[in-house]
Amino acid sequence: MKISELGEFGLINLIQSISDKFRNSEQASWQQLLVGIGDDVAAWQGDNHIQLATTDTLVQDVHFDLDIITWEELGWKALAVNLSDIAAMGGVPRYALISLASPGEIEVENISKLCHSMAALAAEFGVAIVGGNLAAAFNLVITITVLGCSRNKSMLRRSAAMPGEQIAVTGHLGASAAGLEILKEKISLDAETTTALRKAHLQPMPRVKEGQILIEQGVNSAVDISDGLIADLDHVCEASKVNARIDIAQVPIHPLVKANFLNYLELALYGGEDYELLFTAPKAIVDQAKGALNCPVTVIGDVAKESLPNRVTLMDSKGNVVPYKKGGWEHFRG
Amino acid sequence: MKISELGEFGLINLIQSISDKFRNSEQASWQQLLVGIGDDVAAWQGDNHIQLATTDTLVQDVHFDLDIITWEELGWKALAVNLSDIAAMGGVPRYALISLASPGEIEVENISKLCHSMAALAAEFGVAIVGGNLAAAFNLVITITVLGCSRNKSMLRRSAAMPGEQIAVTGHLGASAAGLEILKEKISLDAETTTALRKAHLQPMPRVKEGQILIEQGVNSAVDISDGLIADLDHVCEASKVNARIDIAQVPIHPLVKANFLNYLELALYGGEDYELLFTAPKAIVDQAKGALNCPVTVIGDVAKESLPNRVTLMDSKGNVVPYKKGGWEHFRG
Repeated sequence: MKISELGEFGLINLIQSISDKFRNSEQASWQQLLVGIGDDVAAWQGDNHIQLATTDTLVQDVHFDLDIITWEELGWKALAVNLSDIAAMGGVPRYALISLASPGEIEVENISKLCHSMAALAAEFGVAIVGGNLAAAFNLVITITVLGCSRNKSMLRRSAAMPGEQIAVTGHLGASAAGLEILKEKISLDAETTTALRKAHLQPMPRVKEGQILIEQGVNSAVDISDGLIADLDHVCEASKVNARIDIAQVPIHPLVKANFLNYLELALYGGEDYELLFTAPKAIVDQAKGALNCPVTVIGDVAKESLPNRVTLMDSKGNVVPYKKGGWEHFRG
Repeated sequence: MKISELGEFGLINLIQSISDKFRNSEQASWQQLLVGIGDDVAAWQGDNHIQLATTDTLVQDVHFDLDIITWEELGWKALAVNLSDIAAMGGVPRYALISLASPGEIEVENISKLCHSMAALAAEFGVAIVGGNLAAAFNLVITITVLGCSRNKSMLRRSAAMPGEQIAVTGHLGASAAGLEILKEKISLDAETTTALRKAHLQPMPRVKEGQILIEQGVNSAVDISDGLIADLDHVCEASKVNARIDIAQVPIHPLVKANFLNYLELALYGGEDYELLFTAPKAIVDQAKGALNCPVTVIGDVAKESLPNRVTLMDSKGNVVPYKKGGWEHFRG
């Protein structure tokens, strides 16, 4: 069987099962492990803090197109997607390692722009770029590892959602996917809309501070929306062994997306790469978090017991179930 | 200018200068940083231990050829080169993140072999594989990040060599490069030699325990021999602002290399990828380390003040200077 047939999540399960075969509870590294393969971030108990590590790769002509993205945007985005993983744990990002596998004919000036933008974003979040690796390659592959810690010995987990909790999201959804459509299909919209949606796709702002505030407010369960609202909520449900009901009328679709795209709902539900945080908590904590967060927070549904045929159920405003495709971004599948 | 013209070390300097522009001594990450860009391993002060992080990338058809290396060997080597970087600091490797950027048509069975071998090597050194990333790509790119710590609050550094110290290496040199020649040039030697040299190139054993013993014995300065003896010694000299004199008659050439290759000296001096440790220390400490280490240790020269025209000087057994090319493996240059 080819890995394209097994799919990304099948492959993750395979690697996890191999790693588990060698799990050795007498070794300190395994004893201190809190979150291993299968989550966006690995976590282990450090001396005084929980330690966090995450890595993400962007491959030329798979994840980015140099005819579309500028070098500055590429540097920003490559780091931002990693910071977003730390944000989803409520963590504090501290150090970054930058690996560039790159053709020799790339202009130094372009790598300089890429690194400059990366370093500027890093600085904004107190992250020091401290190392990495350079290698020759046939096309550009950027792998960034971000290391961080928890500020207060706890973390947000995708496996902590509980039945009865509300489901909420920060910000607005669909803007990144709409930006990608504009860039790929060369859709012509007014300059302001184009700029805003392009930026949403190419220069997302990770919700690092928001993740930390969620922990402070007592939230336990969160994920960042990278694969798409439905797909990431599905990950939460699977990890937490719960179901979820979403009122689609409540999904906070980005106003520019709603105003300019007929498929706005699809973009908001499946688009992905919005890098907003989805979290679940009892109503009182969600209300408190709303007050503490400096960004829009919208309740879009609630967590249910694990019993429905699909993990995630979409409802219309009359309470009727809306059928949907599972969708979401998955690597390797065409 | 293209990055192939600037070269690997020029590019590292550029990235370092960009990162330094954003250095902010009020941020905790920068305050605690001990070793940043330019070394094989980044290090910072953790709560009770020094924290170590290193990353290395292997690119298909640049660093490995799937017609030559088996999937098991590839998995082993991809992790081993990272463990060797931790070994060069005298550190304890703890966690690994595995990023695979891979064509979809690769067989699941092969990825399974790769991961199995990686996990087996990890287990040998108490390392837990705790996460990573999967991405589609046009050819296979493996990026591994290994996180570790120092056992006793100190570390080996390439910048700590002092004039008057002896220069010593563990094990034998040249076997990896000889193995590569056998594989590339399809040289026919007896089966035992072929197997041993092939293994030296494709399944190097990182000197993790040896690095830890060097620290215990009071050694401060070391590097792993990945780029080649001369090139890595040159890195030590540059970082420590010293010079080095090597007695080429003392270089411990692997006996199978000496017996089978006319260019054995070149293989041992420039070949690289032996993943032995080169260290410097006063004679008394080197003598002590020899007793404590469970592998051959050979004194090959001494550290001198920074004054000679070349940082590294090769001497023959009569004390005459032997001219040489600088050489060593550098990425991007043809």
